[in-house]
Amino acid sequence: MTNEPAIEMTAPPDVYQQRRARLAAAIRRPLVIFAGHAPARNYSTNPHPFRAGSSYLYFGGPPLENAALLIEPRSDGDNGCTLLRPPMGPDDPLWFGEVPSDEALSEAAGLRRDGVADSDRLGALLAGRQAASVVPPYPDTLAWAAQLGLAKADDDELLAIIHQRLIKDEHELAAMRQAAEICMEGHRAALAATGRGQREADVAAAFLAVLVANGCEPSFNPIITVRGEVLHGQGYPNLMPNGALLLCDAGPEEPGGYASDITRTWPVSGKWTPIQRHLYNTTLRALKEATAACAPGRRYRDVHDLSARVICEGLVEAELLRGDPAELAARIAHALFYPHGVGHLIGLDAHDMEDFGDLAGYAAGRTRRPEFGNKSLRLDRDLQPGMAVTIEPGIYLVPAIWARDDLVKPLADVVNRPKVDALLKDHIGGIRLEDTICVRDTGGPEVLSEALPTDADAVAACVGVSR
Amino acid sequence: MTNEPAIEMTAPPDVYQQRRARLAAAIRRPLVIFAGHAPARNYSTNPHPFRAGSSYLYFGGPPLENAALLIEPRSDGDNGCTLLRPPMGPDDPLWFGEVPSDEALSEAAGLRRDGVADSDRLGALLAGRQAASVVPPYPDTLAWAAQLGLAKADDDELLAIIHQRLIKDEHELAAMRQAAEICMEGHRAALAATGRGQREADVAAAFLAVLVANGCEPSFNPIITVRGEVLHGQGYPNLMPNGALLLCDAGPEEPGGYASDITRTWPVSGKWTPIQRHLYNTTLRALKEATAACAPGRRYRDVHDLSARVICEGLVEAELLRGDPAELAARIAHALFYPHGVGHLIGLDAHDMEDFGDLAGYAAGRTRRPEFGNKSLRLDRDLQPGMAVTIEPGIYLVPAIWARDDLVKPLADVVNRPKVDALLKDHIGGIRLEDTICVRDTGGPEVLSEALPTDADAVAACVGVSR
Repeated sequence: MTNEPAIEMTAPPDVYQQRRARLAAAIRRPLVIFAGHAPARNYSTNPHPFRAGSSYLYFGGPPLENAALLIEPRSDGDNGCTLLRPPMGPDDPLWFGEVPSDEALSEAAGLRRDGVADSDRLGALLAGRQAASVVPPYPDTLAWAAQLGLAKADDDELLAIIHQRLIKDEHELAAMRQAAEICMEGHRAALAATGRGQREADVAAAFLAVLVANGCEPSFNPIITVRGEVLHGQGYPNLMPNGALLLCDAGPEEPGGYASDITRTWPVSGKWTPIQRHLYNTTLRALKEATAACAPGRRYRDVHDLSARVICEGLVEAELLRGDPAELAARIAHALFYPHGVGHLIGLDAHDMEDFGDLAGYAAGRTRRPEFGNKSLRLDRDLQPGMAVTIEPGIYLVPAIWARDDLVKPLADVVNRPKVDALLKDHIGGIRLEDTICVRDTGGPEVLSEALPTDADAVAACVGVSR
Repeated sequence: MTNEPAIEMTAPPDVYQQRRARLAAAIRRPLVIFAGHAPARNYSTNPHPFRAGSSYLYFGGPPLENAALLIEPRSDGDNGCTLLRPPMGPDDPLWFGEVPSDEALSEAAGLRRDGVADSDRLGALLAGRQAASVVPPYPDTLAWAAQLGLAKADDDELLAIIHQRLIKDEHELAAMRQAAEICMEGHRAALAATGRGQREADVAAAFLAVLVANGCEPSFNPIITVRGEVLHGQGYPNLMPNGALLLCDAGPEEPGGYASDITRTWPVSGKWTPIQRHLYNTTLRALKEATAACAPGRRYRDVHDLSARVICEGLVEAELLRGDPAELAARIAHALFYPHGVGHLIGLDAHDMEDFGDLAGYAAGRTRRPEFGNKSLRLDRDLQPGMAVTIEPGIYLVPAIWARDDLVKPLADVVNRPKVDALLKDHIGGIRLEDTICVRDTGGPEVLSEALPTDADAVAACVGVSR
């Protein structure tokens, strides 16, 4: 078994060449895009699994630690690129196995035959020229870039990357569909495990086992909890009481790095209470209406505001809010129950390109609105065909919100506080529904997670049922 | 469910007080021991699970990101300690849930009531004094320590930590026994899954599901592979051919952070070939004899050399080496098949305190021997009661070794190369057996993983058998 290891690549070589040629034509100084390394878990020689930087992967970098792509500015259609890969020590094959040959690397990435070099030559290749960098947030890589004196990529350089990564091509979509398939299998396993185990950890184990069996890592730490009102909760410490709702927001990244991100919420017992069912169906209506609104040209912020109005309608029906739903949404009353944005970009990152800040999520000239709830919206671009986003409305009863006079008092006239307090006492927790979608020219968006049920009865029927 | 979250602590408060008092008496300047933070997976807001630094945990730091313990030098038996915890933003409880109160923190950690402070006060508390630091290798923590101008702890300061952490007390041993129990359950699940699945990933999924269901993270990336000869292989990409051996070197850390590390090797088919069985039984004899040798006062390097001699005996019996086993071991001929050390310290790190380099693993005045094989021994101290170590001999057929003239030629006179080449062609791969043990005063060491079979027939009988 001394055969060369397979090189996992999402796209064929010519696609990487085209992506790099477009980038090379848009920049005016060399750009180094780093792969990064596996960061330490608790001591330096005990790393987390390696995950190459997303821009590095996008432009054809093979998954090698401490590698980098050097893109030269040029306008002749050539992709002007050198792959810097770490030189190998004599004992490395013993500890880490064979690594791909330079020939195999250049072929997979669509580089010229002389387009692979030892990473310690990067300084010489730059030859003292001004150069920019995209550096994943790993300590050794940050130190390497600093030592080379590389500037951070400026907004124009980042936008040249962002505008390519924003629109997913057929290879990327195929990878995202595969990630969604595995994600849905994980959710089905989680639904089945809910009936067997008594603890969140049992459900998390079932979900993660599906990912590992499919060669995947989680694209983010799975949220699998009966305390769905804690939006970024960690760990699975709780028992699952019979009347509780379990919120499962989790997804894999497939071996090429493309993420899936799906949320479902279900009753631990398989039976909805009337108020649970109503709040769930309200969330589901928001999901469906917001998804249907994702047409080319539509402003994503309007999709968020639409979801907010639907949530307000349901809260009025439940007598938690009083008044006209549109007016309530305009006063951002929903944020007391729905304090986050309707979704985000998704691709090689679960929150795609979030490391570039709002330069990725917000179109030129647009900035975040400052109000509680609104300020958490991660995306405000006009949708285009090929954009992949999540749609994930929710309803939560968060004690930490209802303890805040600054949030509650201005809306006291429209809130039915006794009813809110009763639900807080009931530990309704949180409900969220999330699909990953891709905007299409016509016929509405492609819902990558369409095969996973959302209908309240259909979901409840899966609880405790093995496939 | 607005109750305060539980604080996971391994020892009672007075034990942490005693550990800190001993440390306070041994240092001459303030020492800051940082908790660290969860490093980024691919973008800054998408972290890996948080794992607090091991020394921080050992001295009673509650598991809080971006916290630190400030230990003041003093000789009055007081533990002179302040816990610096990050101040909370108004929206934090919404996103991250409740955090423990300062009262709960000081109680759990055995601090004075005024012993908890905002982390942004650390600079003021140091008041310009010279101070030392122990910093886990996470980028934000490194930057924080650098910004405060803290020196790295010197060898004397590190040794004051090392000498405490070297000897495990009853609380630590209880945690390590719990980790071993979960680890053994994982191995049993892996053995069972080997018969059901066709891919390494199926076995890895079964192992990891047991960890997650028990609230554990892996203490290192599990090695679960039919290519056991790649010592630090990653991922689970291979099919498991019927005649192959599966090597499973994997362990959890329990919620307090204490690691388990156990290796078993078994035939995928449940049936050993004669040569597999012989090499396995040789490895097993090395495991047993090396384990039995772990008595107080015994030099760990001698335990390694003993294991090397036993391996040489078995290789001579198999006609892979020729000559007297003791002489072969003296020429380090075993390293062609057994190129690593017999084990390492274990505790809060799977390789305990490896971030301190050989200051932890090697006694004063001792250094690594330079030869291939010998140079990979991570530990050379005289064993003492309470020291926890692994014993993990192995036999591998590594193509990358047999391609190296510098390693093979000097031993050509004692190697049966045709037989080696035949086994290389047969893809024997690698065999390793590893137990976690704790040295005791009398009666031989405690083998924490004793309940997991090592007998060749007993192991094979578990393949494909659900519990």
